[in-house]
Amino acid sequence: MSYLNPVRHITVDAHDPYTLAQFWSALTGYRITDDDEPGDAEVLLESGQPGVPGLLFIRVPEDKSAKNRLHLDIQPPTGTRDAEVERLTGLGAKIFEDHRTADGLGWVTMTDPEGNEFCVERSAVERGLA
Amino acid sequence: MSYLNPVRHITVDAHDPYTLAQFWSALTGYRITDDDEPGDAEVLLESGQPGVPGLLFIRVPEDKSAKNRLHLDIQPPTGTRDAEVERLTGLGAKIFEDHRTADGLGWVTMTDPEGNEFCVERSAVERGLA
Repeated sequence: MSYLNPVRHITVDAHDPYTLAQFWSALTGYRITDDDEPGDAEVLLESGQPGVPGLLFIRVPEDKSAKNRLHLDIQPPTGTRDAEVERLTGLGAKIFEDHRTADGLGWVTMTDPEGNEFCVERSAVERGLA
Repeated sequence: MSYLNPVRHITVDAHDPYTLAQFWSALTGYRITDDDEPGDAEVLLESGQPGVPGLLFIRVPEDKSAKNRLHLDIQPPTGTRDAEVERLTGLGAKIFEDHRTADGLGWVTMTDPEGNEFCVERSAVERGLA
């Protein structure tokens, strides 16, 4: 039997679930479920991999009011950390805190288009994993 | 080559990373990394499955001040939703909002020992997945 991960979804509150899901789809390579449409109150990104949690975006009325206590750490599978920061900036992310160091280590804390923090770390290639 | 998930960790701010990691280890079955100890500022739970993000608990000084905008949806691999709610209550979780319905559907929003919201859904068995 394939692995059943108890963590089924990472759920993200949003003002505009579809638009935010589009950003995260471009970031992760996860696909928006076929029957989800702009304006939907819930939009699911499926990882397409058994046991790998999807990202579920759900509409909420309230604004973000504090730094999130949960965030995602991103390790680009290909390319470099710095190229990924550039790419994500082009998709609407912003640099929040730059923790890169002169020796090539460290990470960049960015925010998505709704202000959710996430960290971009060295890529799998840079770590020798790919 | 095995799948490289760009989502490497789900990172959780905590007052007491090791104690919170113990709760989430018991919830998920993920294992605390061997060299992590009580009092550490960072404690990693590894899923043990390729591509399945670990949970990384990091010490922060500030208190939780608002409902988290990211939360985890839990689908128990075995047993039932209701048995899991009982089990997690015994581990220090609290029921925050009960969305179970008379027809056996719905979910329970709970909070972990540091107040982070998560949802317990019907189990994989109840969905016919296991």
